[in-house]
Amino acid sequence: MPRKSLSLAEVYRLLEPGPVVLLTTARKGHPNVMSMSWHTMMEFEPPLVGCVVSNRNFTFNILKATKECVLNIPTVEFAAKVVGCGNTSGRKVDKFTTFGLTAASASRIKAPLIAECYANLECRVVDARLVAKYNFFILEVVKAWIDPSRKQPRTIHHKGNGVFMVAGKTIRLRSRMK
Amino acid sequence: MPRKSLSLAEVYRLLEPGPVVLLTTARKGHPNVMSMSWHTMMEFEPPLVGCVVSNRNFTFNILKATKECVLNIPTVEFAAKVVGCGNTSGRKVDKFTTFGLTAASASRIKAPLIAECYANLECRVVDARLVAKYNFFILEVVKAWIDPSRKQPRTIHHKGNGVFMVAGKTIRLRSRMK
Repeated sequence: MPRKSLSLAEVYRLLEPGPVVLLTTARKGHPNVMSMSWHTMMEFEPPLVGCVVSNRNFTFNILKATKECVLNIPTVEFAAKVVGCGNTSGRKVDKFTTFGLTAASASRIKAPLIAECYANLECRVVDARLVAKYNFFILEVVKAWIDPSRKQPRTIHHKGNGVFMVAGKTIRLRSRMK
Repeated sequence: MPRKSLSLAEVYRLLEPGPVVLLTTARKGHPNVMSMSWHTMMEFEPPLVGCVVSNRNFTFNILKATKECVLNIPTVEFAAKVVGCGNTSGRKVDKFTTFGLTAASASRIKAPLIAECYANLECRVVDARLVAKYNFFILEVVKAWIDPSRKQPRTIHHKGNGVFMVAGKTIRLRSRMK
């Protein structure tokens, strides 16, 4: 898959619409992945992203210890794999093998990119002060990648209980907002 | 518009897909509204929502002082009004009058509901410790309203620079995730 570097100033345009992301981590060479929807932009540049990773997730301790992860953005073609990642735990299965996901090397961190995703954001944890109370991590995106051939990526947006909204058409309005 | 109470346990299903919201506040009887996309669920029940309200916004000081707001969720029919609210400041114009928005009384707080929105979440600020550094407020939803006649609300999702994704079709998958 073609993959080009994306300006960090453009990262908010990927996360602001609220797509489900696949969050990857790695520890001792073992990659893991979880699906996640509780995230928000917090700053444009450098891009800061706040996200909740429950302490019931296998990922929680890995993220706390390694302070690194990748936010990979899947499209609807991979919805079944996304749900599979949500239904299983890395404590029991190797999700990359089970769901046929391809790990690719990141440039700045050790957690892997998922090659099947149209965008990948390499992140470092920069503020953990709300982790104890809310499981809330603040990430800085240190490197961003995008597949430039995907003009209208049909991201999926979780509505609970297995229902997902698929990104529809886009409209353009005269906005002065960034 | 018909409006019924929504169980607080269901609130996450409205915000998780990442819609643009209209955040309303009131001070000394004067209502104000801003458009906002930087929000995330932080807990299911009681529902906690984290959101960034920039200190450049007129709303910032009102929210800090009153500790109350409503998150109103608009659909694509009102996209022009949403952008209008984003292009203007409550310092200079009464946005309710300018954009023909109808303020309705909330049940638990003084900030108004926007009658044109298909859902309204009455919120109180419960944690402001990240406000100084990140303009990040943690809200608790204390009362939720929804228009039960809107089965497939076509929410809008900001992609930056005036581009919005409109909610497309929904799909259902066998998910064990809440």
